[in-house]
Amino acid sequence: MRCYETFELSFQGEAPKGSHAEVALSAVFTCGEKNWTVKGFYAGNNTYKVRFLPQIEGEYTWKVSGVVEKEGRETCTETESHGMVKAEGNHFVYQDGSKYLPFGTTIYALAHQPETLIDQTMETLKQAPFNKVRHCVFPKHYDYNHNDPEFYPFEKKEDGSWDVHHPCFAYWDHLEGVIRRLEEMGIESDLILFHAYDRWGFSSLPIEEAKVYLDYLMRRLSAIPCIWWSMANEYDIMFNYTMEDWYEIEKTICENDPYHHLLSNHNCLRYYDHSREAITHCSMQTIAVHKGDEWQARYKKPVIFDEFCYEGNIQHEWGNISGFEMTNRFWKICTKGAYGTHGETFYSDDEVLWWSKGGVLKGESPKRIAYLKDFLYSLPSCLEPWDEPVWEEQDEMYDSKEENPFIKLIKSLNPEEKETWKFKGGECGGHCGEEVFLKYFGIQCAAVASIKLPKDHKYKVEMIDVWEMTRKTLIEEASGSTALELPGKEGIAVLATKIA
Amino acid sequence: MRCYETFELSFQGEAPKGSHAEVALSAVFTCGEKNWTVKGFYAGNNTYKVRFLPQIEGEYTWKVSGVVEKEGRETCTETESHGMVKAEGNHFVYQDGSKYLPFGTTIYALAHQPETLIDQTMETLKQAPFNKVRHCVFPKHYDYNHNDPEFYPFEKKEDGSWDVHHPCFAYWDHLEGVIRRLEEMGIESDLILFHAYDRWGFSSLPIEEAKVYLDYLMRRLSAIPCIWWSMANEYDIMFNYTMEDWYEIEKTICENDPYHHLLSNHNCLRYYDHSREAITHCSMQTIAVHKGDEWQARYKKPVIFDEFCYEGNIQHEWGNISGFEMTNRFWKICTKGAYGTHGETFYSDDEVLWWSKGGVLKGESPKRIAYLKDFLYSLPSCLEPWDEPVWEEQDEMYDSKEENPFIKLIKSLNPEEKETWKFKGGECGGHCGEEVFLKYFGIQCAAVASIKLPKDHKYKVEMIDVWEMTRKTLIEEASGSTALELPGKEGIAVLATKIA
Repeated sequence: MRCYETFELSFQGEAPKGSHAEVALSAVFTCGEKNWTVKGFYAGNNTYKVRFLPQIEGEYTWKVSGVVEKEGRETCTETESHGMVKAEGNHFVYQDGSKYLPFGTTIYALAHQPETLIDQTMETLKQAPFNKVRHCVFPKHYDYNHNDPEFYPFEKKEDGSWDVHHPCFAYWDHLEGVIRRLEEMGIESDLILFHAYDRWGFSSLPIEEAKVYLDYLMRRLSAIPCIWWSMANEYDIMFNYTMEDWYEIEKTICENDPYHHLLSNHNCLRYYDHSREAITHCSMQTIAVHKGDEWQARYKKPVIFDEFCYEGNIQHEWGNISGFEMTNRFWKICTKGAYGTHGETFYSDDEVLWWSKGGVLKGESPKRIAYLKDFLYSLPSCLEPWDEPVWEEQDEMYDSKEENPFIKLIKSLNPEEKETWKFKGGECGGHCGEEVFLKYFGIQCAAVASIKLPKDHKYKVEMIDVWEMTRKTLIEEASGSTALELPGKEGIAVLATKIA
Repeated sequence: MRCYETFELSFQGEAPKGSHAEVALSAVFTCGEKNWTVKGFYAGNNTYKVRFLPQIEGEYTWKVSGVVEKEGRETCTETESHGMVKAEGNHFVYQDGSKYLPFGTTIYALAHQPETLIDQTMETLKQAPFNKVRHCVFPKHYDYNHNDPEFYPFEKKEDGSWDVHHPCFAYWDHLEGVIRRLEEMGIESDLILFHAYDRWGFSSLPIEEAKVYLDYLMRRLSAIPCIWWSMANEYDIMFNYTMEDWYEIEKTICENDPYHHLLSNHNCLRYYDHSREAITHCSMQTIAVHKGDEWQARYKKPVIFDEFCYEGNIQHEWGNISGFEMTNRFWKICTKGAYGTHGETFYSDDEVLWWSKGGVLKGESPKRIAYLKDFLYSLPSCLEPWDEPVWEEQDEMYDSKEENPFIKLIKSLNPEEKETWKFKGGECGGHCGEEVFLKYFGIQCAAVASIKLPKDHKYKVEMIDVWEMTRKTLIEEASGSTALELPGKEGIAVLATKIA
């Protein structure tokens, strides 16, 4: 047993008579005064398993009850694993305290592709910057997604309907294999538990059956550290489920996950209520990528733009932005200390498009995303949104900020005016305390610009061309309001780093 | 006297003793059973003038009363002038029924520049596609606007404050000259009556003085056909005026304009209430250029995006978009049957930037705007927004549109969700009845696409590259849902024209 690594007990026994999912099997793991109760599962082939993810080092006793009755002892030793990713403020961090900045990609039906394609995808991911993959438990039916998977999560009843009480063990072994292969490359699985793009009936499981499915999934997977729960992709277009159902699903996940993996719910149009206690971070679909700081402030949680259109050339407006625009949106998002998720949809006669099936990457953005990722990892801390004090002079004109008529005007705007106005500012700012200030100009082609730095420190000012991936010193030493000469093109960031 | 052309009567008389603005001088023009009462004005140099803009041909009598008492007769004959531009549905039309599609540009302080610069601007405009110029009565103080004009609209009192009762006649003669020079080139003056960018005190005239100014302005200018009234540029940041003041200004304009020139009020952040009866069209500042059709439907009036950022490279986010982005926004706007206004802000050491002072055009968008303008003028009618029937198949799945859960979902969105979602669709559509369908893809780089044409007609399908200004036939004869192969780049429009 090693800390932050899946510990598994395996027992032989007769196959369950009734449900193969809801078997009476649980275990208590005790370490000092702490204990964890976990459920075991039937893994097929007369085998029962209990999985546990130790959170602390030390001497453990364990006791298995139910269809198997056993007990034992284990010493949990130190590990090299970072543990699960957890939310902390507006950001994420591994359990061991090491840095984790999510740079995800989307391969919805990854686990439902032929083995040779999965192999190719894994090879691609080895070279790619992505450290999170959004993928689905259920297979996907949609444009460019017409192939049937080898396995489905459940066996079928005689009437052809799914029997959630009889998991297809080969399916689950396979899914775990995919998750483990990603884990070996340091890639988190943002596992999508439900979605609407379906021709097999998984999107219309009655809620009671959905809960049986979740229970079995949690028994098997919750002890795997590199998993996040994405309740759904586009929950709001799963018209068979009501909001009450979603709350029930959320509750079922929480009750069956002893380790509190990251949990969110991804929208199509109507954002999930990210203020809910169980929700660890915002998982948004929107192109309003300027709203990261607004949502951080509202929800006090990290914000991930898990879909903001994909680089590609297919017919759908969400799937045909340019490599530059993908890069641009990533920088707009990350400058304010939020995070983005990549996706790629280049038309292909063989229907293998990265966003759903993997394969190879064809786009121009991944290497720019890698550049951005390296840059962000090189900073002394995570970026927080920076409201550049551009209204400093104005503030002096009024007794208080509240008296400033511009601020009053902004506060008086109706939602239509507010939301449409907010799209305007192409530029955005982030900072690491007083150490680093970052200003990204988006599609603004400024040739003259400025940055308002603290007056009492000196900064080296550099310019980053996010497309060319070049970095160039503009000013060796700057303080306070600093004029900038820029190339007058899109995709320029200015970085000010405090001189020691 | 010619129809739609300014008719002027001029009389000698002693200079007014009191106000030079509010002189007791009016005239009644009678033609058959119709009559018009207009006010005259003191033009300086012991001269009083009465101006009249005949709306119909025929035999007129006129009678001047007040400080001058005269009467006479005139025959009003046919003219070659198109008359004033009027709003009609979502569009504009000259009084004589001829087509007018506004393609404006912005030269705020045009009238306040040295004569040589004005000459240069007029030369530039001769070659440019613009048929409307937004410019100000009052001089402008702002970045790159530090020069004083030769004349101001009023003389000063002894205490140095402006005396609205003593117009500076040289100023008004000069302003009229500028308006007339534009008129000669077929360019409308979208005359901005108030604005906030001021160091002289014009933006803080007490409302009673503002009304004296308006009264004098209307006496002089309202008989000039090529003028639109823009109550303000960014009325909402003129913090000296309340909403009541704006309604008072609106009322004053209406009461003193016998001809009902086009009238709107341009915002910075808070849109004016364009549902007001006197407002003839929406004059919006926003980058939410996809909202033209929404506002047409809401206000039943034409929509002009009079500011949606300028092509340029200055420090302000409103003044540094690329030539492509300016072109792209123009196409997005115009495809849905709304209209846009150009502006250009390239940094220059001499502080001559087109948006405020004129001079020469440096940008890459004007020739693309010219191409778009020629294209729109070539269509059989004005474009109306086209909601491509992409949900046709879905509609068949439900008893009624109201039962479609996607439509229900969209209706249930809160304003934040609705506004942010609406920005997503890069593509937009317009049509001229069943004759022409236009689909513009914006920044969408589709390589595969489709267009849903009526099934019972045949169409020639062409592709327009809005940047390269090329037009190429894709399909000689198409009907119904038609698959398209496109180049997978930004700035592509698809045009379907009914085959006779």
